[in-house]
Amino acid sequence: MSVVEQARRARDAAEALATATRTVKDAALHAMADALVARTPEVLAANAADLAAGREAGLSAAVLDRLALDEGRVAAIADALRQMAALPDPVGEVVRGSTLPNGLELRQVRVPFGVVGIVYEGRPNVTVDAAGICLKSGNAALLRGSSSAAHSNAALVAVLRDAVSGAGLPADAVQLLDSSTRDSVKELMRARGLVDVLIPRGGASLIRAVVEESTVPVIETGVGNCHVYVDAAADLGKALAITLNAKTQRLSTCNTAESLLVHRDVADEFLPAVLAAFADAGVTVHGTPAVAAHSDAVVPATEEDFGTEYLSADISVAVVDSLDAAVAHIRRYGTGHTEAIVTDSQRTAREFVARVDAAAVMVNASTRFTDGGEFGFGAEIGISTQKLHARGPMGLPELTSTKYVVTGDGHLR
Amino acid sequence: MSVVEQARRARDAAEALATATRTVKDAALHAMADALVARTPEVLAANAADLAAGREAGLSAAVLDRLALDEGRVAAIADALRQMAALPDPVGEVVRGSTLPNGLELRQVRVPFGVVGIVYEGRPNVTVDAAGICLKSGNAALLRGSSSAAHSNAALVAVLRDAVSGAGLPADAVQLLDSSTRDSVKELMRARGLVDVLIPRGGASLIRAVVEESTVPVIETGVGNCHVYVDAAADLGKALAITLNAKTQRLSTCNTAESLLVHRDVADEFLPAVLAAFADAGVTVHGTPAVAAHSDAVVPATEEDFGTEYLSADISVAVVDSLDAAVAHIRRYGTGHTEAIVTDSQRTAREFVARVDAAAVMVNASTRFTDGGEFGFGAEIGISTQKLHARGPMGLPELTSTKYVVTGDGHLR
Repeated sequence: MSVVEQARRARDAAEALATATRTVKDAALHAMADALVARTPEVLAANAADLAAGREAGLSAAVLDRLALDEGRVAAIADALRQMAALPDPVGEVVRGSTLPNGLELRQVRVPFGVVGIVYEGRPNVTVDAAGICLKSGNAALLRGSSSAAHSNAALVAVLRDAVSGAGLPADAVQLLDSSTRDSVKELMRARGLVDVLIPRGGASLIRAVVEESTVPVIETGVGNCHVYVDAAADLGKALAITLNAKTQRLSTCNTAESLLVHRDVADEFLPAVLAAFADAGVTVHGTPAVAAHSDAVVPATEEDFGTEYLSADISVAVVDSLDAAVAHIRRYGTGHTEAIVTDSQRTAREFVARVDAAAVMVNASTRFTDGGEFGFGAEIGISTQKLHARGPMGLPELTSTKYVVTGDGHLR
Repeated sequence: MSVVEQARRARDAAEALATATRTVKDAALHAMADALVARTPEVLAANAADLAAGREAGLSAAVLDRLALDEGRVAAIADALRQMAALPDPVGEVVRGSTLPNGLELRQVRVPFGVVGIVYEGRPNVTVDAAGICLKSGNAALLRGSSSAAHSNAALVAVLRDAVSGAGLPADAVQLLDSSTRDSVKELMRARGLVDVLIPRGGASLIRAVVEESTVPVIETGVGNCHVYVDAAADLGKALAITLNAKTQRLSTCNTAESLLVHRDVADEFLPAVLAAFADAGVTVHGTPAVAAHSDAVVPATEEDFGTEYLSADISVAVVDSLDAAVAHIRRYGTGHTEAIVTDSQRTAREFVARVDAAAVMVNASTRFTDGGEFGFGAEIGISTQKLHARGPMGLPELTSTKYVVTGDGHLR
């Protein structure tokens, strides 16, 4: 089936989803969870086929691990669906409302987008998560996953579709697109009018390609060249702990710190401590000469280093002369994801927050907190690094639009 | 100067605007208004040059009238700026906030987009309006107006820039792009990273071109193929008044009704009355055979008629068998702008509102009410017909994004 035909079916399904009550949608989410658990063997058989093909293709152990499912992982994926059922329904929320001077009653009400396309390179759990979040927010999902997970995704979507349709909603609320060719992504990007929004999740090159080529509105996610700025007025003990946590708690996430800026007034005291800690943690430091002066282990930093989202045990480090210089550096190299300051100066914190242009600004906290789960959203479809529509972690409300409902009694202009 | 260079200057200006207080911004708006009034002669001289060139080029009387300024019109434009100064500042509003279980304080705060590009075909007043709305919302404006208003726009922007800079804000907060060539639009559409959002205002072909070609995020505005559906349970007196108001109160606006759907149960009673009224008002009716049966003046409607935004004294009319048929018709031909139902049935109104997918749904009110002024927003940059970010009339808050500010005390994950 062509992507356009799948998108048409999604539009029809979306019409039914838009008016489905929370009760029906939550029942479908529970049915999806139950079906995943009940049909775990068939999911695992499909996953085994992907793993075998992946081994054949020489995928790394880390990639194979991300691809792998087992009974416990399937149960966890199912639990995530049950947790979504417990979240409030964003659809129908009255965002603003008033009675106009002429007596017209104005209400701005949350409604689903309609059809949401998601292009991702992630693990099979993204397939189920995305389907669940879309269904809860009343949207039909067009899922274009990785070809390396093709069998797993097909099995998962087959289970989900049966459950959705068993719960009285259209099976086409959840559809998987062909992952064997790039053509399906291209068709999806051109399906303006049928697809309401496209969310690419994955590497920078995928996201850039979608942004360049899509006529469907896009929400850009995830590239994070995040900085920690240790101010002259920082508590250096906290600064050390935050820097290490931000860099090393997990290396490959978009909210991991990739660059450290240290105010010159505290550089002599702070750098030896943080460089030693990085050495202990196995992190390679790419530093300017002022940084390298403190340790032979520092690799000289190039211009490119400061613009790089390593996603590995590497960090770029520079000494800055002032808050102005820190803000200018972040403005130049940052990707607008998460920027942190460590300072005990209320005035400096206030200025950093006001001047740094990013989805999230942390004061005396690790960059790793930029996350839908940490923010208490309950479910997350990605982290937007653009300014249009949604910025930062996107939960259920971010998958909705609004509609003005205006009620009168024969009102004329 | 290239558009890219102008965009760079706009980014620098935006940094200052983002942290400007309301007091400073409002003072700038008043200074802009005062300067426009004080320098009216120079604006009118430039406008006279545009009018002379327009006459030379054979522009229609209606177009020349839209282009023309006089002392009264300049004063009205200045007053609009003063009214913007009186509106609340959207920047800094805390959209949501909470203290997380670990004690982190989370706030989602409204911030300006940064740089807003506006491509428009409108009158010279749009230049001033757009500059004012952008400045009030803390955004730098890149304005690409019509070449027919080139002299007027240049004079207006010169006055505005002087006033902005006199008020202590960067003059580059307001910049005019070259309107003598399409290249400036092309460059603007490719300035991703420098321009945060692009708002095209004008004809369908301009908007389509921007949507197709822009890598800068776009907010689509304005195309309105709006319907009035007269239900079986309608008060036919109100239905007649609403239909006429929606079609004839102003012919060339995007919220003007372009199509009328009449339930078959009331067609025999309603159609003769509405057709007579349209004849009196000089409106040509393009109708299906069931409509034409009631009047010789009805022109046969083609498939194309139902998809056309006439913006003229024309309307397409069809008889429908049911609410389902009305909704299906609107789903097929509507542009998602404004759809109205006239009915006394609470149940039917509720169903129409739930099922029709549009920026605004009117119940027993004219489609003409979809307007920032009518909705009480005080200022409007356009009417979005897309679902991403903003839908319907866009006021000051719709020209902002948000930023998460997270405050801790050495918090780690």
